[in-house]
Amino acid sequence: MVGAPLNKTSLPSANGTRTTTTLSSNSVLALNTGDPTVFEPFWQKMGDKCDVLIRGSDLMSYYSDKNNVCWFLEPELGDAIKRLHGVVGNAVTDDRHIVLGTGSTQLFQALLYALTAPAASEPDEPVSVVSSAPYYSLYPEMIEILHSGLYKWAGDAYTFNEDGGPYIEVVNSPNNPDGTHREAVVNGDKGKVIYDFAYYWPQYTAITSAADHDIMLFTLSKCTGHAGSRIGWALVKDKDIAEKMTDYIAISSIGVSKESQVRAVKVIGVLCDGCENDGLVESENFFEFSRNLMAKRWQKLREALKHSECFTLSKHPRQHCLFTGEFTKTLPAFAWLKSKEGIEDCNEFLRGLKIAGRGGKAFGVDPIFARVSMLSREDEFNQFIERLVVATKGISNGH
Amino acid sequence: MVGAPLNKTSLPSANGTRTTTTLSSNSVLALNTGDPTVFEPFWQKMGDKCDVLIRGSDLMSYYSDKNNVCWFLEPELGDAIKRLHGVVGNAVTDDRHIVLGTGSTQLFQALLYALTAPAASEPDEPVSVVSSAPYYSLYPEMIEILHSGLYKWAGDAYTFNEDGGPYIEVVNSPNNPDGTHREAVVNGDKGKVIYDFAYYWPQYTAITSAADHDIMLFTLSKCTGHAGSRIGWALVKDKDIAEKMTDYIAISSIGVSKESQVRAVKVIGVLCDGCENDGLVESENFFEFSRNLMAKRWQKLREALKHSECFTLSKHPRQHCLFTGEFTKTLPAFAWLKSKEGIEDCNEFLRGLKIAGRGGKAFGVDPIFARVSMLSREDEFNQFIERLVVATKGISNGH
Repeated sequence: MVGAPLNKTSLPSANGTRTTTTLSSNSVLALNTGDPTVFEPFWQKMGDKCDVLIRGSDLMSYYSDKNNVCWFLEPELGDAIKRLHGVVGNAVTDDRHIVLGTGSTQLFQALLYALTAPAASEPDEPVSVVSSAPYYSLYPEMIEILHSGLYKWAGDAYTFNEDGGPYIEVVNSPNNPDGTHREAVVNGDKGKVIYDFAYYWPQYTAITSAADHDIMLFTLSKCTGHAGSRIGWALVKDKDIAEKMTDYIAISSIGVSKESQVRAVKVIGVLCDGCENDGLVESENFFEFSRNLMAKRWQKLREALKHSECFTLSKHPRQHCLFTGEFTKTLPAFAWLKSKEGIEDCNEFLRGLKIAGRGGKAFGVDPIFARVSMLSREDEFNQFIERLVVATKGISNGH
Repeated sequence: MVGAPLNKTSLPSANGTRTTTTLSSNSVLALNTGDPTVFEPFWQKMGDKCDVLIRGSDLMSYYSDKNNVCWFLEPELGDAIKRLHGVVGNAVTDDRHIVLGTGSTQLFQALLYALTAPAASEPDEPVSVVSSAPYYSLYPEMIEILHSGLYKWAGDAYTFNEDGGPYIEVVNSPNNPDGTHREAVVNGDKGKVIYDFAYYWPQYTAITSAADHDIMLFTLSKCTGHAGSRIGWALVKDKDIAEKMTDYIAISSIGVSKESQVRAVKVIGVLCDGCENDGLVESENFFEFSRNLMAKRWQKLREALKHSECFTLSKHPRQHCLFTGEFTKTLPAFAWLKSKEGIEDCNEFLRGLKIAGRGGKAFGVDPIFARVSMLSREDEFNQFIERLVVATKGISNGH
């Protein structure tokens, strides 16, 4: 999942969609959300291969398949999702129900409901929901917004006082914001675990095994970069949970845009074709393309911060990737910056450089940390690097 | 808004999307939801006029217009919505913020949040939400699902004990299920009113004035019939409320499908062109076409029930319609059937005829009432009429 861009007013000069970015040195760089526009060039290169034509009388019904648990899922999208996981090898889809959501954000909320809704009409105590810090900043926001009697945010999983009662742990791996690989840490008898695999794709990390958990979340936004489509999916073993999630999404929005679904079918199909025809047309392998892009960006960032007196970056392990067949670096979607001594608030310091990030506190940790998106358009990313370099020079020159 | 189709299992033989309906006399007619497939023939007739082509690299960002309160609303859709209300004359859009939702269902929940979220972090008592019975069955479901501490369902507005405290009244006009015209009935000092105008379009009712309330909800589903697109919008006077609604939708689903938005722009544009060129090509006026369709269906239904010993239908007033310039009948999207003496449960009786409706209890009234959709495809509607006629004959013949 991604950071919801709520703090719009702090970004006066941010650019809208589909406009050419015209950055001046005075523009604030809006890198506080993970808008994945970095991948646009690949899809531009695909020309008309991904074109989708929708006619006036297409897709008018609420229903896609009344015989499926998730009755608003177009069967072709279910097939495309299974094919995608088969091609990438990052998750087991056998014996799973696919539940579709308006992004994985909506599915996360559907899961909170499905895992806590009482059989009787009145709930007991709200169920605690935890995640290891630094945790994705939207988790507490989503959990707390309606003051639900079904569940409550209970903070960092590491410090959670597990007392034998029911709880939910969210495991985000690789983790937003810091790109680390995560496992469940509470391991209580009555715990249920949501695996949020938004970033478990080859451009960000080694695919070390096909994940085989009971509840797994994925999103198109961070896989192909089509964030505007708002398509996410859950792979769910238990039919009862899948049914309750479907009920939640029916009540929350009566299903998910059919236009987005049809387009996702096309985009995923072209992506899979490109991966499978790898030997023939190398440049049409999306993950190779996007991995190269991410690798170049991370190289530039590490280079820029090599002698920085302001920031440090943590290192990530190399791992063997089943998808590429190589030992590969982790290339997170976000830079998780730690400010050096003398800079107490990393995000404030970035703001001084006209870089909008998101401060550590939102992720449950110290303000010496801040998260900055690595997924922006090319010119924004280059400006980001330039400003980091200038800042480093400025300080080392005594300015 | 529309009835969420949660009770799938009771409809074993219902048909999926885009399949030709093959009805046998044993099929259960799934008329328990308001799936508006009745309007498909109009859009088929439009041929390629409504075609939308989406390329692989289009619409990838979360953002549509960072300078707008509702930053995920495509500006062209905002313009199209204003034009539509201008052409139809059913609502004032001046000095309003447009907030987009994944159907008006999501917007209703965004409003509950926006109208009750406390300035401080802990809410007081949950705010009561009421609506005059018979009320739309999804209102209580949406309000109660998460056991929110911000708001609670308080039932029928007519029997609400207004004590001077804050409350919310939902006014659905014309009303789902019974097609009546509604006004707010509580009228307390601290009340806020949500006007749900899902059915305030010329095919269902006379447009008697341009509605000019502070908070008004509309949905594409019941206007053009494009329910699969999940596009709804709110016209909101107060900027603070519009901002809070936008925040809710950001947290709930990080915006609304861009593909659906682009398609809605096209569909609304073709609809408006057709209305404005009315003199030239009569058959291209969507509201004329759809009104004629609804009128024929209501005539058939009234004819079928004329001598019925099972059901009665209430009458609706004729009113002067500013859109058509004529005195017109109300032609509701649902038949609100009342069973005659001896039939205690109208919906159960319908089930015996293999007609799936929705019983009065879900709408807060007696089971002698049931709601049946008038918006199905033609063959399903004809079967519905046929079964009503057979039932009437069966009873009058003493079978």
